Amino acid sequence: MSFEQDLLAAKQRIVTYSHKCYERGWSPATSSNYSERVAEDKVAVTCSGLDKGELTTTDVMLVDLEGQPLSEGKPSAETLLHTQLYKRFSDCHAILHTHSPQACVISRYLDQAEVLELKGYEIAKAFTGISSHETTLHIPIFENSQDIPALAAAVDVYCDQHVGVRAYIIRGHGLYIWGPTMNDCWRHLEAFEYMLECQLLEIRMQS
Amino acid sequence: MSFEQDLLAAKQRIVTYSHKCYERGWSPATSSNYSERVAEDKVAVTCSGLDKGELTTTDVMLVDLEGQPLSEGKPSAETLLHTQLYKRFSDCHAILHTHSPQACVISRYLDQAEVLELKGYEIAKAFTGISSHETTLHIPIFENSQDIPALAAAVDVYCDQHVGVRAYIIRGHGLYIWGPTMNDCWRHLEAFEYMLECQLLEIRMQS
Amino acid sequence: MSFEQDLLAAKQRIVTYSHKCYERGWSPATSSNYSERVAEDKVAVTCSGLDKGELTTTDVMLVDLEGQPLSEGKPSAETLLHTQLYKRFSDCHAILHTHSPQACVISRYLDQAEVLELKGYEIAKAFTGISSHETTLHIPIFENSQDIPALAAAVDVYCDQHVGVRAYIIRGHGLYIWGPTMNDCWRHLEAFEYMLECQLLEIRMQS
Amino acid sequence: MSFEQDLLAAKQRIVTYSHKCYERGWSPATSSNYSERVAEDKVAVTCSGLDKGELTTTDVMLVDLEGQPLSEGKPSAETLLHTQLYKRFSDCHAILHTHSPQACVISRYLDQAEVLELKGYEIAKAFTGISSHETTLHIPIFENSQDIPALAAAVDVYCDQHVGVRAYIIRGHGLYIWGPTMNDCWRHLEAFEYMLECQLLEIRMQS
Repeated sequence: MSFEQDLLAAKQRIVTYSHKCYERGWSPATSSNYSERVAEDKVAVTCSGLDKGELTTTDVMLVDLEGQPLSEGKPSAETLLHTQLYKRFSDCHAILHTHSPQACVISRYLDQAEVLELKGYEIAKAFTGISSHETTLHIPIFENSQDIPALAAAVDVYCDQHVGVRAYIIRGHGLYIWGPTMNDCWRHLEAFEYMLECQLLEIRMQS
Repeated sequence: MSFEQDLLAAKQRIVTYSHKCYERGWSPATSSNYSERVAEDKVAVTCSGLDKGELTTTDVMLVDLEGQPLSEGKPSAETLLHTQLYKRFSDCHAILHTHSPQACVISRYLDQAEVLELKGYEIAKAFTGISSHETTLHIPIFENSQDIPALAAAVDVYCDQHVGVRAYIIRGHGLYIWGPTMNDCWRHLEAFEYMLECQLLEIRMQS
Repeated sequence: MSFEQDLLAAKQRIVTYSHKCYERGWSPATSSNYSERVAEDKVAVTCSGLDKGELTTTDVMLVDLEGQPLSEGKPSAETLLHTQLYKRFSDCHAILHTHSPQACVISRYLDQAEVLELKGYEIAKAFTGISSHETTLHIPIFENSQDIPALAAAVDVYCDQHVGVRAYIIRGHGLYIWGPTMNDCWRHLEAFEYMLECQLLEIRMQS
Repeated sequence: MSFEQDLLAAKQRIVTYSHKCYERGWSPATSSNYSERVAEDKVAVTCSGLDKGELTTTDVMLVDLEGQPLSEGKPSAETLLHTQLYKRFSDCHAILHTHSPQACVISRYLDQAEVLELKGYEIAKAFTGISSHETTLHIPIFENSQDIPALAAAVDVYCDQHVGVRAYIIRGHGLYIWGPTMNDCWRHLEAFEYMLECQLLEIRMQS
């Protein structure tokens, strides 16, 4: 396939999963942004501020790994959080950044926590490379900020210091999750949202 | 475009968002009403008491800024709450009044509160004019009343005394929200309902 | 319209609202039954034990006010609870009996209560004849029983002793609600389920 | 009908109910597996690890009662949990194994419990052979394990010691439920999930 064909296919996948995220309530009110790596140093990413239930392929643009536009359009304000992951993880080819109430609420409830621990869930096996419910997932929680380069740098430092980072939460904001393909990334997202829903139920049952 | 074309387009938008509100469970049992400003002093508003999942353009009528009918039909009983906002805010062009269980419950739970404070939510940026999660939203809560002119007057007094009013709740009843276009208004509504859902979860987790 | 045409229209409405109830989760696992009065002493009622998401007009049969079949088929085991209401209330023309988790749970939680009080809800105005949120609804709760004639008799005695009965709950089972038309009945059901959802949220917030 | 026709019909039912389970949120992130008995000693079962919202008939394969493939494909890792039930219960012809958050959470909350008791629910009558809400259901809860033969043996021992086992939960994982036909199995699943939802609500209301 040519680069143009790859790019179009990536845009179509982004649109498909955008609509799925919107329907689940994970991307309301023009929030969220999504991307896919199309070449080693080129990324298709959603343009800034659109209704994710109405996204079309013309709302996806091309940027380089510094977040600089390679096609017309204004990339998402959080593009650097995408390119940070692509630069660091060579096997990361797709990223979904979503805003579910679950991710927002748990990070506000655990207002002093820097990590969310998820243990004992069979569904954790949905993550590429996890083969037992006995594996504990450690999901870092970063403080929200409108300074995206600073936030990207904080994520980078955390990844320097920890192996096996698979997703992260920004407090009161949303989550970032990724995978080797968009299909994998969606599977990771479904599994992660499932565990967040369980955690919220469990906290309410124990309170 | 002619006035008639503008009016038809407004009616069609009202029908589209009526169905969306109904599907979300925000407008059950013939509750809710919606409007759009078509000229400086003319407003398209839903007729009284219809199933909002079945609304058609013939169920939307024209009124003036005093709520007096300019076309056939019986306007919603709460029309004066719409026209109060159009008279006060020149940049208000669309209003959604909905009845979500979330708006109803939080205002009953906070039964002595006159204001709901929403702070620290990234999604607040969905509101036109808000650019940081550090902005705190203040949403007034009015006591419910069947006396609509009195209720409209109470809203008017509150707006005299406060700047930056973006939405309000009527206790045990529902919410009013508005924007420069119907698209903006819907984005505001999605963001507001998201924060209400988060608040309800957070209260239950802390109780 | 001929009787046969009225009957077919009634069957079609029953099928339409059956599918709606199923989609809301109010009629799972072949539970629930629905009916409409077609003549003073003739009632169209769902046959026994069918998937309410798959109902068709051939699954609706005709009975008299004693619940005796006037057409082929086995009427719902709870047919006498329908005919009791038609005999007592001349303006009752449609009944929906549903099994929402909400109705089940609130009646199990209030395990000693004989009445559920609903006060201060604007949505109460959706009930035919209620014009203010200041009206308090009193919804009787009956103990569940497999003895349907005994249950019908208990409802009858309650209605002898109280005016303005608009719906009732059977503990751990479901609810009965009715209206002058199927449209009205659905509006009543939406409003009632809304108030049940609010009540459940409010109890959890206060516990 | 020929065996081939029976097999195709079974595969089509598995696909239909797979999509239903996925839409309800009971089978996220490629979790879950489903099967139907096609002959006394032959079982159609889903292949390993597929998106259950996208399942097609080519994703269903044939195995014998020892879980050995009789057609191309890699059977689900949990195939032995299916065949254990088919071997033991001659009237078991369809099995749904799902992963709802409800089943996961209740078994984690009741972290020392070996049995979940469900009593007083009218919906229990949806189970084949139960005719009154006064019947109490006893649902065993097994510890999760990646050792499927050991888990199957534990289920077998439990069934030796107890009559009337109708479903079971694996802690932090999901549930197994079955019936004489796939239709019955779905009805059982809807009823069981309903009771789990009620239980979770009741626990939160009482905490």
